[in-house]
Amino acid sequence: MSLSEAVPATPSEGGARFLAEIREQPDALLRLLERSEDFARVAAAIRERNATTIRLVGHGSSDNATSFGVYAFGLLPRWTALRDSISLVVYYRAELDMSGCTVLALSQSGKTRDVVEYVQRVRERGAFTVAITNDPESELAAEAHEVLPLFAGPELAVAATKTYVSTLASLGLLAAHAAADGPEFESELRATAELMRSLIPALEARIAAVAVPFAFAGRMFVVGRGAEYATVREIALKLLETCRVAAEPLTATAFAHGPVAALDSLFPVWAIASDDATLPAVSEAIARARSAGATIIASGTAAASVGDVDFLLPVPETSSPLLSPLLSVVPGQLFAWALARTKGFDPDEPRGLTKVTLAR
Amino acid sequence: MSLSEAVPATPSEGGARFLAEIREQPDALLRLLERSEDFARVAAAIRERNATTIRLVGHGSSDNATSFGVYAFGLLPRWTALRDSISLVVYYRAELDMSGCTVLALSQSGKTRDVVEYVQRVRERGAFTVAITNDPESELAAEAHEVLPLFAGPELAVAATKTYVSTLASLGLLAAHAAADGPEFESELRATAELMRSLIPALEARIAAVAVPFAFAGRMFVVGRGAEYATVREIALKLLETCRVAAEPLTATAFAHGPVAALDSLFPVWAIASDDATLPAVSEAIARARSAGATIIASGTAAASVGDVDFLLPVPETSSPLLSPLLSVVPGQLFAWALARTKGFDPDEPRGLTKVTLAR
Repeated sequence: MSLSEAVPATPSEGGARFLAEIREQPDALLRLLERSEDFARVAAAIRERNATTIRLVGHGSSDNATSFGVYAFGLLPRWTALRDSISLVVYYRAELDMSGCTVLALSQSGKTRDVVEYVQRVRERGAFTVAITNDPESELAAEAHEVLPLFAGPELAVAATKTYVSTLASLGLLAAHAAADGPEFESELRATAELMRSLIPALEARIAAVAVPFAFAGRMFVVGRGAEYATVREIALKLLETCRVAAEPLTATAFAHGPVAALDSLFPVWAIASDDATLPAVSEAIARARSAGATIIASGTAAASVGDVDFLLPVPETSSPLLSPLLSVVPGQLFAWALARTKGFDPDEPRGLTKVTLAR
Repeated sequence: MSLSEAVPATPSEGGARFLAEIREQPDALLRLLERSEDFARVAAAIRERNATTIRLVGHGSSDNATSFGVYAFGLLPRWTALRDSISLVVYYRAELDMSGCTVLALSQSGKTRDVVEYVQRVRERGAFTVAITNDPESELAAEAHEVLPLFAGPELAVAATKTYVSTLASLGLLAAHAAADGPEFESELRATAELMRSLIPALEARIAAVAVPFAFAGRMFVVGRGAEYATVREIALKLLETCRVAAEPLTATAFAHGPVAALDSLFPVWAIASDDATLPAVSEAIARARSAGATIIASGTAAASVGDVDFLLPVPETSSPLLSPLLSVVPGQLFAWALARTKGFDPDEPRGLTKVTLAR
């Protein structure tokens, strides 16, 4: 089925920036790899201060990336990393003891109001603070002890893509250096960037045909587990902001604890099945969705192994399961681009959103 | 508008258990208050071991309660509490150092497979483990160092209500005893139970008329922040499992970072506005939803103060903002009960779910 046969009306012409920034992702990753010494320096500073409880904060795509950070630090240096509550610190002013803590504050723009205020407050309470941002001249960068710039280049589409992927890579690099595993992770990351470079055009060639049947889908579940939970959240957010689909991110297990009851044949499920220890849980969730009659899209490194699904968008295997989220988000980004155009929306500038969200 | 005038067809007769268990909530809270010494003992044991990093785990409604725990322990003893990753420990077998940590494992049934396995593993790694469960004879209770039974009585409806509220109260009691604030919190909790006893019949009298216009709503956002984020998650889950509404829980700020773009007049928003430091952020979110033309239901202690909304389901003010989530979930529980019946569903036994979820 070719695009011209399948599309119900003329697709929108929008989305050029969004697509360009998806295509820039492999190069952005390689630029980050040139800054290896930054990650080594910050990892050494964390060790020196013995500040090995990692508190992660961000909003939107940056918050999605914090979910990946929990696994990167848990699996590599075996440190406890948590997605911290900004409300607790900024709004309720809870006086927590932050000595022994490193704060990683994630913000593409470096302007997110309550992330900046969070850093100011935790710094006063003894935390070692690191800004991970695409703007090293931003207010966030100025407030933190250390800055790890993303070097992703300007991101102009409102919905984030390359800064999300580069934030995952930054968290992975920092965790790997903390575990004295920097060089090995760097070579794996380089290989992942090259896999992504081949993956993007291959997916572009077929994504419109996959997106078209979803032109009238108003809701979707996005399901996965473990390190891919960040991917689940990020794909759901792309679908919400660019396609106005009520896409809900769920861990495979949370899905089985209630939401599965809502499924029917008009309620599609996007499942991310990657080849790691969580695969049996994800496969079980897919089987339950199938028996409820839901339409299933499977992506991830193990998508082809989970049995009968309606649409397959697999990604190549990476050398470590921790790298697979960098690839498995790409089918979701391109699907959001294609579905928005099918619906006549402009994925570069979703209605009602601005690039820098100053909302509390 | 009376129920008989408004309902498009005969409402289902189901939901007797679900409603009975909602009504039992104030008594369940009072029973918990009789076990004050249990909470004092466990709080003392945590202090004695200096195990003051609190790791919370659970699935479904228990996972929603973990979001409350972050605030209870952050605000009362000022300890860091985190919603831990079960995947990291159980599936990836990350070897984290758990000394200095207390694990609170939440499970109504005490049978949730991977919560039991999580407790076994973290206990081996040095954590002090406490089961909070409605079944003190369960496998989970047997695996943990200490058990805090919920004393909620048998819960027969598949969708949890009273065990959720009693779990919040248990976390609050434990946190208050840890902060040497036990007696004061207990008297506040007793007062909250009495407020709930008046609230339930008052809401029951008008909830069907509020639910009826949503008979064909397929999706909804549930929005709030801070201590009420647990409520947001729990109301969304009730709507998903009993009414098959794709209800997505969002913090007020996450809502503004993308999902707001999906709104239109057919996409309702449930906002929980409680009178605490997060109210300005929630009010801003409501204003954005209003300007997108969304239908808005406002509940919470400050619902009446957030300006023009379509449906108001306020709850009375509690002496401490930490108690308000016990009340503000009740309108959501009763709305789910009424909407399920309007749709002809049986809220006692949602299709495709069983009471004890053994899914991974």
